[in-house]
Amino acid sequence: MRTIAFVGLGAMGLPMAVNLLTKGHTVRGVDISDAPKERFEAAGGTFMRDAHEAANGADVLVLMVVNAAQAEQVLFDAKALDALATSATVVLMATCAQAAVQSMAKRVQDSGRAFIDAPVSGGVVGAESGGLTVMTGCEKSVFEANLPILQAMGERIFHVGDAPGQGAMVKTINQLLCGVHIAVAAEAFAMADKAGIELKTLLEIMSGSAASSWMLQNRGPRMLQAEPPVTSAVDIFVKDLSIVLQTGQDLRAALPIAAAAQQMYIASSGRGDGKADDSQVIRTYRALNQGDKS
Amino acid sequence: MRTIAFVGLGAMGLPMAVNLLTKGHTVRGVDISDAPKERFEAAGGTFMRDAHEAANGADVLVLMVVNAAQAEQVLFDAKALDALATSATVVLMATCAQAAVQSMAKRVQDSGRAFIDAPVSGGVVGAESGGLTVMTGCEKSVFEANLPILQAMGERIFHVGDAPGQGAMVKTINQLLCGVHIAVAAEAFAMADKAGIELKTLLEIMSGSAASSWMLQNRGPRMLQAEPPVTSAVDIFVKDLSIVLQTGQDLRAALPIAAAAQQMYIASSGRGDGKADDSQVIRTYRALNQGDKS
Repeated sequence: MRTIAFVGLGAMGLPMAVNLLTKGHTVRGVDISDAPKERFEAAGGTFMRDAHEAANGADVLVLMVVNAAQAEQVLFDAKALDALATSATVVLMATCAQAAVQSMAKRVQDSGRAFIDAPVSGGVVGAESGGLTVMTGCEKSVFEANLPILQAMGERIFHVGDAPGQGAMVKTINQLLCGVHIAVAAEAFAMADKAGIELKTLLEIMSGSAASSWMLQNRGPRMLQAEPPVTSAVDIFVKDLSIVLQTGQDLRAALPIAAAAQQMYIASSGRGDGKADDSQVIRTYRALNQGDKS
Repeated sequence: MRTIAFVGLGAMGLPMAVNLLTKGHTVRGVDISDAPKERFEAAGGTFMRDAHEAANGADVLVLMVVNAAQAEQVLFDAKALDALATSATVVLMATCAQAAVQSMAKRVQDSGRAFIDAPVSGGVVGAESGGLTVMTGCEKSVFEANLPILQAMGERIFHVGDAPGQGAMVKTINQLLCGVHIAVAAEAFAMADKAGIELKTLLEIMSGSAASSWMLQNRGPRMLQAEPPVTSAVDIFVKDLSIVLQTGQDLRAALPIAAAAQQMYIASSGRGDGKADDSQVIRTYRALNQGDKS
């Protein structure tokens, strides 16, 4: 059993940290908001406001923050890295661009600590159930030493390669596909709607045909609702597809379909739907193709 | 049991016609090639070269030809329509644009016969097993009267709406999604390849994550092969996405993602891969992003 500092107790981070507690680890949880405090403490965790203090002498630092800038702030500005045990491991689980991960990994390794690039897929549902997919890039020995920690949070744990950044790259590919699959489902449904096809029947047909995707089945029902609950916001895909396209640019790999999809999320956010459920990218197609008169 | 003229005994049409024979119908099969003759006759069918002759007095005319132009040629130029029983039903199962279907339906109905717009999804595998998805647009009474015929060929039989053309529209939506899902899988895999990610591992991760699609699971393994067998050719998606985009134009529904995807199939065909398996659209991404030096 290890002493873990866990930074970022959001919609996904909180249940992930709780799953670590359930497995018997000592977990010091850090968040800028007090919202997760009650549930986290009820599960046996120690809630703290200061990442440096939480990291003091800890064996593992898990970063489940929003982006690379926040991870760097915790590690270097708040000096959580320096507070860790000298033999500690930093596990970066946020969705970040490969280049940012590589730079963070180098600074962590230069301090003598180990680094695991370990982004996840599976959303809040996967985080709650411990059923996340984890895509890791790190030395095999570091992977094996920390596997029980990763298995406490995820079900499908992949060692993608030996270099930090390779997990981030696979997550980037994952988000490219997810982002396009949602947007193209919206494109298809909006055209069908304009053509007078009943969308409920269409969804039933498409969910069982060669046209199906995980996202069509998951987001499709919410595309048929006017104000669905928010499980993941439009602005997340503005950000994630921005990482995808920057990565493509860095690699000199043109991504014409992902680029077209991102424009639709940007337009959705621009129209004031940045905080809406990402299924509501369909509203941008309606705005494009129907206007006020329809 | 009915007397059915079945025109178009290709890779899908032949097993569909055989499934009708298996259910006890009398089937006169027509094809311009002799290739299907042996199997069709062995299953108990009567093979003919002339559609007019095959349609003579038949109760049902099934059209499983390549496109709307061929269907019109059979119906009107070869006068198969006039040869049918006056109470007969024409079942159009080819993938055609909605406008062409509407025009054909009108001419058939003006002759006193019934018309079912009934495109299918499920490919050769679905045609062989009788497991096709059939999307019909026709009056409910015509649908019900011909349901046993449709059930002989398909498993999931949907009545989409009362107007011919609505089946074609749903099939168009289906092809929009299928075409984009294949192309975006190629886009993602080509970028991953350039980034040095092992594609076999990537495919395993993506097949079980939120990034999955039916097409990713079906075409993904063939994207990893240099010369996979052809189950559906690149040129089919040049044609089907052309129907998609023309339909969008007719409806004044902009389809930015489908348009980007079609360019990739057009480029593949332009590079000489029109007859290659559609998974090989990935070669166009390689040509775009890798060049001769990599």
